[in-house]
Amino acid sequence: MLEFGLRRAQGIDGALGASRAAYIGGAAATSNVLAGRLLGIPVRGTHAHSWVMFHGDELAAFRAYAEAMPGNCTLLVDTYDSIDGVRHAIAVGRELRARGHDLAGIRLDSGDLAHLSIEARRMLDEAGFPDAKIVASNDLDETVIGSLLEHGARIDAYGVGTRLVTGYDQPALGGVYKLGASRDEHGSWRDAIKLSEQPTKITNPGTLAVRRLRKAGELVADIIYDSDVGLTAPALHDIEDPFRPAYAPEFDEASELLVTYLRVGQPVRDPDSLDVARERAARELAQLSPRARRFLNPQPYPVGLDPHVHSRKQELVAAARAGSRPD
Amino acid sequence: MLEFGLRRAQGIDGALGASRAAYIGGAAATSNVLAGRLLGIPVRGTHAHSWVMFHGDELAAFRAYAEAMPGNCTLLVDTYDSIDGVRHAIAVGRELRARGHDLAGIRLDSGDLAHLSIEARRMLDEAGFPDAKIVASNDLDETVIGSLLEHGARIDAYGVGTRLVTGYDQPALGGVYKLGASRDEHGSWRDAIKLSEQPTKITNPGTLAVRRLRKAGELVADIIYDSDVGLTAPALHDIEDPFRPAYAPEFDEASELLVTYLRVGQPVRDPDSLDVARERAARELAQLSPRARRFLNPQPYPVGLDPHVHSRKQELVAAARAGSRPD
Repeated sequence: MLEFGLRRAQGIDGALGASRAAYIGGAAATSNVLAGRLLGIPVRGTHAHSWVMFHGDELAAFRAYAEAMPGNCTLLVDTYDSIDGVRHAIAVGRELRARGHDLAGIRLDSGDLAHLSIEARRMLDEAGFPDAKIVASNDLDETVIGSLLEHGARIDAYGVGTRLVTGYDQPALGGVYKLGASRDEHGSWRDAIKLSEQPTKITNPGTLAVRRLRKAGELVADIIYDSDVGLTAPALHDIEDPFRPAYAPEFDEASELLVTYLRVGQPVRDPDSLDVARERAARELAQLSPRARRFLNPQPYPVGLDPHVHSRKQELVAAARAGSRPD
Repeated sequence: MLEFGLRRAQGIDGALGASRAAYIGGAAATSNVLAGRLLGIPVRGTHAHSWVMFHGDELAAFRAYAEAMPGNCTLLVDTYDSIDGVRHAIAVGRELRARGHDLAGIRLDSGDLAHLSIEARRMLDEAGFPDAKIVASNDLDETVIGSLLEHGARIDAYGVGTRLVTGYDQPALGGVYKLGASRDEHGSWRDAIKLSEQPTKITNPGTLAVRRLRKAGELVADIIYDSDVGLTAPALHDIEDPFRPAYAPEFDEASELLVTYLRVGQPVRDPDSLDVARERAARELAQLSPRARRFLNPQPYPVGLDPHVHSRKQELVAAARAGSRPD
């Protein structure tokens, strides 16, 4: 999967942030050349439709591109007609081969990608280009890619832009900044609370940390606890429903999720390299159960409160509702 | 309407771009202090929940804020309970008044904003603060604001963030870069075309410009024409349906929509000030008919092709489909 989102991101930082996040999350490369230069992310892409439109004649356009990029020539075939485009790509592939190079591949960007990719694969194989890759793009997302796979599409790489960098189906992450605790004049932590009529919007008090539990290498649950108090029990209380009894999962390994990089505005640890972050993301994702990973009706992954945070929250909520503040 | 979107935008340029666009589009101010400083946009806002959470006691928090901002004191009242918060705001408003200042207003950020605003207005009026403004926020958009107005909400200003800066219901603008025409080796324009199975995605050829027609001060239609050829008739062909007969609207005024600011990479005109852009946006919006402006089932505003562009497009499509290229 290649990240192709530059034109849909908000400005330069939005685009660099999206390329960086996509690469950490598993994208193989980006079409954002600046992200390649500044962040060291591999860069991949093809030419634009305007390259073919400028030449007018598709075969002439492909020849000019093959001249410019003989070692990395992926041709966008759908400016006029995708099947004609594949024929022109094969013709240019033969010319490249005669000069000692190989056609890297073609890109399909419209129409029935399942059907066209099967047809293009057949044409490329018959013409002696079994190693030419087929790249597909055009408003792809996980659902469309899933459907293409189901329909036997012969696609080697997916270019995903709009629906990756804009978070199309969830355009804003509902994260907010509230306060968990603050130090009083004597330097002691004082817990804070924000009430809401929606239980999910009531904050969790304390200087919070998160412990992740695993069993036989699979993620089991995350427990939010107060780092000033420590984990009081490997048990989780439901965040929204205080009446639900605590749940004590079986586990054989526990690790900290929060790592301090900045303290009181000072860096206290070097940032991880992109590759370290990328490997960690892949490892954690592989440890998530297939039930929690599926697209449709995934099983919610358990995240809950440590018993101390749970009871402290109830105390603070009751006190704030009574209009007084316990310390 | 105040733009409150900083925390939902993609990075600094995303946020500055959103604040700038919101102000041009009619927002009265932004909560983005950097946009205020760099772009001269008026800045408005209140304190965060964390201000109250830090103090713990809401009355103490409001007093501290009134001390810091006596001349611009708008208090966020929903950290614990909105009605209690209004009472605390009134108490602090009385203290401010005793010191020669006035309570600017309150902000409601959760719960039933229609009901709470009516109740808060009554409380503020009865307490002698008829000029204190009520600001509302919490995932507002045009639909929610419309509903609040319908339900008699007594809200003076709306803080809109997430659903403004992310374009929540349309997270990506489907704009693309294609080529209309290019100069050949003799300096003459050569029209280009991109085919598609979806008629709306077939490009319009030529060095395009747009003429906007008005009648009695109301917008009538926009005609896309070839600036190298000029407007051949004040008539529009449907962009997607070539068989539909051209439509010649009545009009008494015509103006150019495209203005050249850059030519071959060189600035040829100074950018407009934000205020000029903002006034133009307001004027053009006011000239759009109420039928085209309504939220639900608006009448599509007519945009079509000049007869020359229309017939040139048909020629180029036919030629490209036949696999040859006419020049």
